Amino acid sequence: MRIVVDAMGSDRHPQPDVEGAVWAAREYGVEIVLVGKKDVVETELAKHDLMGLHVDLVHASQVIEMKEHPAAAAKSKKDASMVVGIKMLKQKQVDAFVSAGNSGGVLASALFYLGRIKGVKRPALSAVFPTRTGHCFMLDIGANTDCKPDYLLQFAIMGSVYAERVLGMANPRVAIVSNGEEEGKGSMLVQQTYPLLKASGLNFVGNAEGKDIPAGFADVIVTDGFTGNVIVKLSEGIASFLLGMIKEEIKSRTLASVGALLAKPAFEQVRKRLDYREYGGGPLLGVDGIVVVTHGRSDSLAIKNAIRVAKQAVEEGTLDALRSGIEQSLAVTSEE
Amino acid sequence: MRIVVDAMGSDRHPQPDVEGAVWAAREYGVEIVLVGKKDVVETELAKHDLMGLHVDLVHASQVIEMKEHPAAAAKSKKDASMVVGIKMLKQKQVDAFVSAGNSGGVLASALFYLGRIKGVKRPALSAVFPTRTGHCFMLDIGANTDCKPDYLLQFAIMGSVYAERVLGMANPRVAIVSNGEEEGKGSMLVQQTYPLLKASGLNFVGNAEGKDIPAGFADVIVTDGFTGNVIVKLSEGIASFLLGMIKEEIKSRTLASVGALLAKPAFEQVRKRLDYREYGGGPLLGVDGIVVVTHGRSDSLAIKNAIRVAKQAVEEGTLDALRSGIEQSLAVTSEE
Repeated sequence: MRIVVDAMGSDRHPQPDVEGAVWAAREYGVEIVLVGKKDVVETELAKHDLMGLHVDLVHASQVIEMKEHPAAAAKSKKDASMVVGIKMLKQKQVDAFVSAGNSGGVLASALFYLGRIKGVKRPALSAVFPTRTGHCFMLDIGANTDCKPDYLLQFAIMGSVYAERVLGMANPRVAIVSNGEEEGKGSMLVQQTYPLLKASGLNFVGNAEGKDIPAGFADVIVTDGFTGNVIVKLSEGIASFLLGMIKEEIKSRTLASVGALLAKPAFEQVRKRLDYREYGGGPLLGVDGIVVVTHGRSDSLAIKNAIRVAKQAVEEGTLDALRSGIEQSLAVTSEE
Repeated sequence: MRIVVDAMGSDRHPQPDVEGAVWAAREYGVEIVLVGKKDVVETELAKHDLMGLHVDLVHASQVIEMKEHPAAAAKSKKDASMVVGIKMLKQKQVDAFVSAGNSGGVLASALFYLGRIKGVKRPALSAVFPTRTGHCFMLDIGANTDCKPDYLLQFAIMGSVYAERVLGMANPRVAIVSNGEEEGKGSMLVQQTYPLLKASGLNFVGNAEGKDIPAGFADVIVTDGFTGNVIVKLSEGIASFLLGMIKEEIKSRTLASVGALLAKPAFEQVRKRLDYREYGGGPLLGVDGIVVVTHGRSDSLAIKNAIRVAKQAVEEGTLDALRSGIEQSLAVTSEE
């Protein structure tokens, strides 16, 4: 297994990207190809003991920055690290691509240079979330701001395949985000998508209201990229707000401070469960290859886990399963 | 000041509704009219000492339940408590209406029997939220699932007036929910609304991402009713998930349990800041009268605070301020 890692992806690149990749090479026994500016990546690599590891370096002279317009940058910067990495995946020189860079840039690069799985209308960005009962898998979290019902149906199909194969969820429960539980509640988009999901053969459990998501109501949460992005970022914001508020209140009270010291391991455990780094980012589902995008704020642990996710996705034959899921769905539609 | 309270509104009506109303009559010196089934409300009232208070009862034989279709119920149940209450407001027998009932039912009743402020395209449901720096005021949180740019502009105008008058926020910062900070990011709806907000003369501070809302980025958060509803319910869900997780982790550790006991006042303070009951529900902005809707799960404290909000809205001349805000905005548009 050979995985290409964007060495220029994370906000603090290349340090976390390189360190995480080396760590993954050691822990998972995968071959790593780092793609990025030769000199800076070499300097970073020199800090690590690579004995017995398979870590290569491919030079790419450009970087797509976080603030750049994704599609324009992916087109004009033909020697950007993520473009070079995606092209290697296209040419089957590697099995998967991992980046903590501009997610729109990865999406655009994948669309231009890798292409979509046959029949897929729109690829979707995804993420794994902690819930009261375990995890859920959400898509789209930002690739497609405005969606159509058939996009959401395909997100549900792809999410279901991924949840089953990679996350080990048997017969995953699929829900669509809405502003009411009952069938018939929701935006025009949700109301039009509902019957498609109901007829899809998926384990569709209906509308998920905002409160149902952290409660663990479903395994696969389908929504448009606008709503999904708001959900992901709001969740981060609220968690940080709440934990910050608890910390401040505790600090302002002497007895409470002593208490907090005793309760520290409990808090650590909570923080760990909420830590996006543990979940290893989400795949870009629908493109014709295994592409995993992780948070720009990723540290080496997050990068390492994103590589683990990519490896699992390859091992589980996710791409073929996605292909046949989409094919079956299109066959049903054309029969009608 | 005379406020009509839906005695059949909350999930556990009429107990919290009646108790909260009596409490408000005592604490704020307002006259209360309870509207609901005479016998059950009388039984409930008999439990309270009404000496020196002005609490009347108006009989209404029907109730709009939580699960009913709002518009159909508001039309067919002409003697429903909320319909009777709204009609009293229309006839100026009272200064404001408060209900913890089916919010769609209140909206439909208000649209049918009270009407809109002249020029208002759609009324919006609203809520006050705690943030890192204080509060923010969000609308629409569910009245209009699919919106148009001019609806959102009016929500911004009305939200701004309300935040200034009732919440005491000077020159309130207005933001629109989006999936990216920069101008140009967002759904078609957000992209089309942005220039309207920029040209509105409001203190428009741009796009608010999910994480920006609890961070206190803006005082007035404008969004469509679908997204707003997801935000409100997700926030509740995450807070309950997080606090529940902390509790469980602490319980599973002896030392941590001792610590939690010492830290209890700090936790209580956090819980209080997150408690929706403290904020007294949100007004239904854009209808031609002061209508306050509070959570179905309301207890008497929440009802009492909703009555406080209604009283403040009346005292601050909110309705006239809303009228002139909408008028000015329409004048600008027609000049162009």
